[in-house]
Amino acid sequence: VALRILITAGPTREYLDPVRYLSNDSSGRMGFALAGQAVRRGHRVTLVHGPVDLEPPAGAALVPVVSAAEMLRACRRVWRRHDVLLMAAAVADYAPARVRGTKLKKSARSLLLHLRPTPDVLAALSAERRAGQVVIGFALEDRDSRRRAAGKLKRKDLDAIVLNAPAAIAAPSSSIQVLTRDGRWTRIGWADKRVLAKAIVGLAERLAALRR
Amino acid sequence: VALRILITAGPTREYLDPVRYLSNDSSGRMGFALAGQAVRRGHRVTLVHGPVDLEPPAGAALVPVVSAAEMLRACRRVWRRHDVLLMAAAVADYAPARVRGTKLKKSARSLLLHLRPTPDVLAALSAERRAGQVVIGFALEDRDSRRRAAGKLKRKDLDAIVLNAPAAIAAPSSSIQVLTRDGRWTRIGWADKRVLAKAIVGLAERLAALRR
Repeated sequence: VALRILITAGPTREYLDPVRYLSNDSSGRMGFALAGQAVRRGHRVTLVHGPVDLEPPAGAALVPVVSAAEMLRACRRVWRRHDVLLMAAAVADYAPARVRGTKLKKSARSLLLHLRPTPDVLAALSAERRAGQVVIGFALEDRDSRRRAAGKLKRKDLDAIVLNAPAAIAAPSSSIQVLTRDGRWTRIGWADKRVLAKAIVGLAERLAALRR
Repeated sequence: VALRILITAGPTREYLDPVRYLSNDSSGRMGFALAGQAVRRGHRVTLVHGPVDLEPPAGAALVPVVSAAEMLRACRRVWRRHDVLLMAAAVADYAPARVRGTKLKKSARSLLLHLRPTPDVLAALSAERRAGQVVIGFALEDRDSRRRAAGKLKRKDLDAIVLNAPAAIAAPSSSIQVLTRDGRWTRIGWADKRVLAKAIVGLAERLAALRR
């Protein structure tokens, strides 16, 4: 059965002035691989992505965004028309509280940058879902990984969470573990992100079938 | 006469934890275009560059770096063996005072990020130059541009400074104005960065000939 799959990918950038920003190492490879794989499997794909340097997968509807707030707005606009969310983006957790209109000048003094939490895109979309919609989150943890991923799944009411090793970020391959709502962990050994993408899209198909 | 030209390019990244960083929009295009042009003109080029997504110019010795501190170390290692410095990199002005060893966890609270000024790569290399070495700086100003660029030339004891319009950042083309030590401004109209690179390498050649 063809699904409508909303995929987020890449980092977000949170500007503090017209040229400077906070971001992270995410390359967008996982999300782009998911989109390519989902298109190949016959699904309809919307790919909301932050600034990346990747060839976009043919056949996916692309929605480029910059900040976490923009990503949330873009996703909210289309979420209700989708069956599955694959939240692979590495959304910045913090953004400068104030965005300066002109370039911050360098001085010899140190500086306190006031940051505030960005909107939680995954939690918001999960909370707004309608019956039958499947939400799969992603986690990158460097300590106490399984416990933290399980906490995230529960707190954000996810159908499944994909736990990445820290070495996965910006790398072409990764090793992942997947936790489903029933408490079962599945490990998928070190592989190219395109191979992992195939397994994750397969999981989304099974979860969507169960939800129907 | 073949010169040995040290060129810096791109942004730097200043990490606050293993995956998050502060950076800026610089694409590295200007510095890479300068390197390509300098090689074509028969000069020996060392290109010290931050994280960029560009094809490296054939024939230049590449030195990839990440942070401002690394860029300074890499440049200092080789500066004395060069005749000219073209400081096209957009070095981050501030870096987190503390780099966390593990991923900062998101919380609902806001956060004060303590930043301190990065080393001033251009000022340091200019101060350490030996007789005959030519130093050309770059400035990107969004207000009071000429006065600020002139101040930078004087303060850092530069032979010339290239003033970019803010629209130049990450763009394939730009419009520049060049100030030399004699107080003369020259404007080079909107053009592809490769065309501007040719003019700037020509200026470096003239200034190096005067210094000899």
